[in-house]
Amino acid sequence: MEIISKVLDKEYKIVIGRNILKDINKYYVLPNKVMIIYDEGVSVDYLDSLTSNILGEVYVFASLAEKSKNIETYSAIIRQLIKSEFSRSDLIIALGGGATCDLAGFVASSYKRGINLIFSPTTTLSMVDASIGGKNAIDFSGIKNSVGSFYLPKLVLIDLDTLSSLDKKIYNEGLVEAFKMGLIKDKSLFDLFFGVINKNIEEIIIKSINAKNSFVERDFYDKGVRKYLNFGHTLAHALEAYSNYEVSHASAVAFGIIKLLKGDLKEKTKEIFDKLEVRYEFDVDLCELIKFIKQDKKIEDDYLDLVLVEEIEKPFIKRVKIEEIKF
Amino acid sequence: MEIISKVLDKEYKIVIGRNILKDINKYYVLPNKVMIIYDEGVSVDYLDSLTSNILGEVYVFASLAEKSKNIETYSAIIRQLIKSEFSRSDLIIALGGGATCDLAGFVASSYKRGINLIFSPTTTLSMVDASIGGKNAIDFSGIKNSVGSFYLPKLVLIDLDTLSSLDKKIYNEGLVEAFKMGLIKDKSLFDLFFGVINKNIEEIIIKSINAKNSFVERDFYDKGVRKYLNFGHTLAHALEAYSNYEVSHASAVAFGIIKLLKGDLKEKTKEIFDKLEVRYEFDVDLCELIKFIKQDKKIEDDYLDLVLVEEIEKPFIKRVKIEEIKF
Repeated sequence: MEIISKVLDKEYKIVIGRNILKDINKYYVLPNKVMIIYDEGVSVDYLDSLTSNILGEVYVFASLAEKSKNIETYSAIIRQLIKSEFSRSDLIIALGGGATCDLAGFVASSYKRGINLIFSPTTTLSMVDASIGGKNAIDFSGIKNSVGSFYLPKLVLIDLDTLSSLDKKIYNEGLVEAFKMGLIKDKSLFDLFFGVINKNIEEIIIKSINAKNSFVERDFYDKGVRKYLNFGHTLAHALEAYSNYEVSHASAVAFGIIKLLKGDLKEKTKEIFDKLEVRYEFDVDLCELIKFIKQDKKIEDDYLDLVLVEEIEKPFIKRVKIEEIKF
Repeated sequence: MEIISKVLDKEYKIVIGRNILKDINKYYVLPNKVMIIYDEGVSVDYLDSLTSNILGEVYVFASLAEKSKNIETYSAIIRQLIKSEFSRSDLIIALGGGATCDLAGFVASSYKRGINLIFSPTTTLSMVDASIGGKNAIDFSGIKNSVGSFYLPKLVLIDLDTLSSLDKKIYNEGLVEAFKMGLIKDKSLFDLFFGVINKNIEEIIIKSINAKNSFVERDFYDKGVRKYLNFGHTLAHALEAYSNYEVSHASAVAFGIIKLLKGDLKEKTKEIFDKLEVRYEFDVDLCELIKFIKQDKKIEDDYLDLVLVEEIEKPFIKRVKIEEIKF
C-alpha cells in the first residue's frame, strides 16, 4: 500500500507493508553514506533487516527514545555527521518511535540546512503521527518540543511487522491519536475501533495517515485547518507538564478529549479508551492547569484557539480567553 | 526606499534609509515581548534608538559576532526565551553584522518551530548578504555554517547611519560580496565601484540587494540559479579552512573570484579589490586546498558545480571532478 503525500511543491511516498524494511533500496536510491538513528528499544532484527540491502557506509547512532530527545544528543549526532563528512546528498534514517523520529527530523532539517531523511516508524503512535506531516522537535529546559522545525522526509517506510514485538500498553496508547483522527475526520475510522482492533490495525493505520495527511497537505505550517489535529492537546500538554510528565502523552490526550466531548460521543469515546486500557480520568484543579496552558506554544495574547468536536468529522475552533476556560 | 521580496508564498519588506531604527514600529506591529540579539561591537546608541519606540518588554542578549555563532550561545538564547515565556507571536530582532543575523535566524527558525524575526544589519556585508535571502547558520566542531536552516524574516530594517562608525576595513571587506553581485548580475552595479564608493554606497547597497533577491526569489532552496551567488566561494571556504580562519572571508572570496576570472575582467576586478584594500593573493598549494573543498557543503559525489563568469551578468555552472580542478 502506498500513499503519496503532496505538501507545498514537494511530494513523498508513504509505504505501508509487512517485512519491507529490507526493501528500502526499492523505494529510494541510496547514497554513499547512511546514518541510522536507532532506538535501542527496537529489536536489533529490524535494524539488521533495514541494513541488509544498504551497500554504502552505514553508521548507527543508538538512542534512547524520549531520553535522547535533547540538545546534547542532537549535538552528538551533528558531531558524528561532521566527523564522517556527510554531505547534503547523503541520508539519515530514523528507526524507532515518535521521539526518535522527532530527534532525527530536527537533525536532518538543520545539518547543512537539510540532508535527506527517511522515517521507519516502529510504534503505532509514530506510524500515524510523528512520521507524518513534517513537524519535528526536541525538548529544552524541561519544556517539551520547544525547539524544532518543519521538514519533510523523502520517504516513510512503515513495516507493520515491527509492531509485533511492541509492548501492548505502548501499542494501545498510540491508537489514541488514531482514534482522534477518526473523531475529527473519518467516521469509518472511528467505527473500526468498535471491532477487533488488532485485526483492523492495517486499515486503522492507513485511514489515520490519510486523515492526518489531508490536514497537512492543506496547511503545512499550522496556520489553519491543521490546528484541528490539536483536538484534546492543549489540556493534554498542560496535564503532562503539571504531572511532571508522570502522566503518559496518550492518557493526557485521552483526558483532554474526554473533557471536551459531550453526550453520546463522550460515552462512546470512553468505551474505546476503556477498551484500549488508557486512563483518562485525573483529579486535577483546572486553575492549576491554566498556568501550564499559558506556557503552551499555541497561545497568542492570552487567547486560546480551542478545538471542539460536537459531531464526528465536524471539528471547529472556538477562541476563548484562557482565564475563562470551563468544562 | 523599500524593496518587497516575494519568496515562495510569503513576502517581506526591506527598508533602506537613514536614522530609521527608531521608526521600527511604523513598519511592524510590535508584540508584547521583543528579544534583541545585539552585537556588542555595535554602538549602544543604535540599540537605544531601536528600543526607543518599543513599548512592550524588551530583552537584550549581548553577543560577540563570530565568537557567539555556536551551539552554546544558541542554547543560552533558547533558554532565555523559554524562561521569559516567549510565544511564537513575539519577536526576535538581530542588531549586528552577518554572524549576529545568522545566529538570530537559526534561533528564530527553531524556537517553537518559528518565531517572528526582524534583521537590522549594521555592516555592509550583512546589509547586502546575510540579512537577504533567508539562509542562516551556526558553526559546529570548527566547521563554518554546518548547522542552520532556511527561514525568512518579517522585515529587514537597514539604517545606513550605522555604517558611519564601522571600521573601514570591515566596511570595505563587506563590499566584496556587493561587487560579486555586480559581476554575476548587474553591470551598472559593477560600474559604480569605479566611482567614489563612499558616495555611491546607498545605490550600491540597493542594487546589491536587488541582485541577490532576484536569485533568491527564483530559487529559495538553492537548487538552481541561486548557486550563482556562490561565485568564488568554493575556493574561498577552502582557503578559510586551510588557513584556520586567519584569512578573512572577504579576502578568501576575493582570492576565489580572481582565481576564476580571466583577461580584462580579471584586471578590472583586481583594480577594485586594490581600491578596497582587500588582499586577494595567497601562496597556497591547490592540492592542499582540495581536501578542504571536499568538506565543503556544496559537494555531491566527488563532483563539484563550479560557478564561472567570463562576461559580466552571464554566470554559468561547470560540473568538474574535484581532483581535476585547475586554474
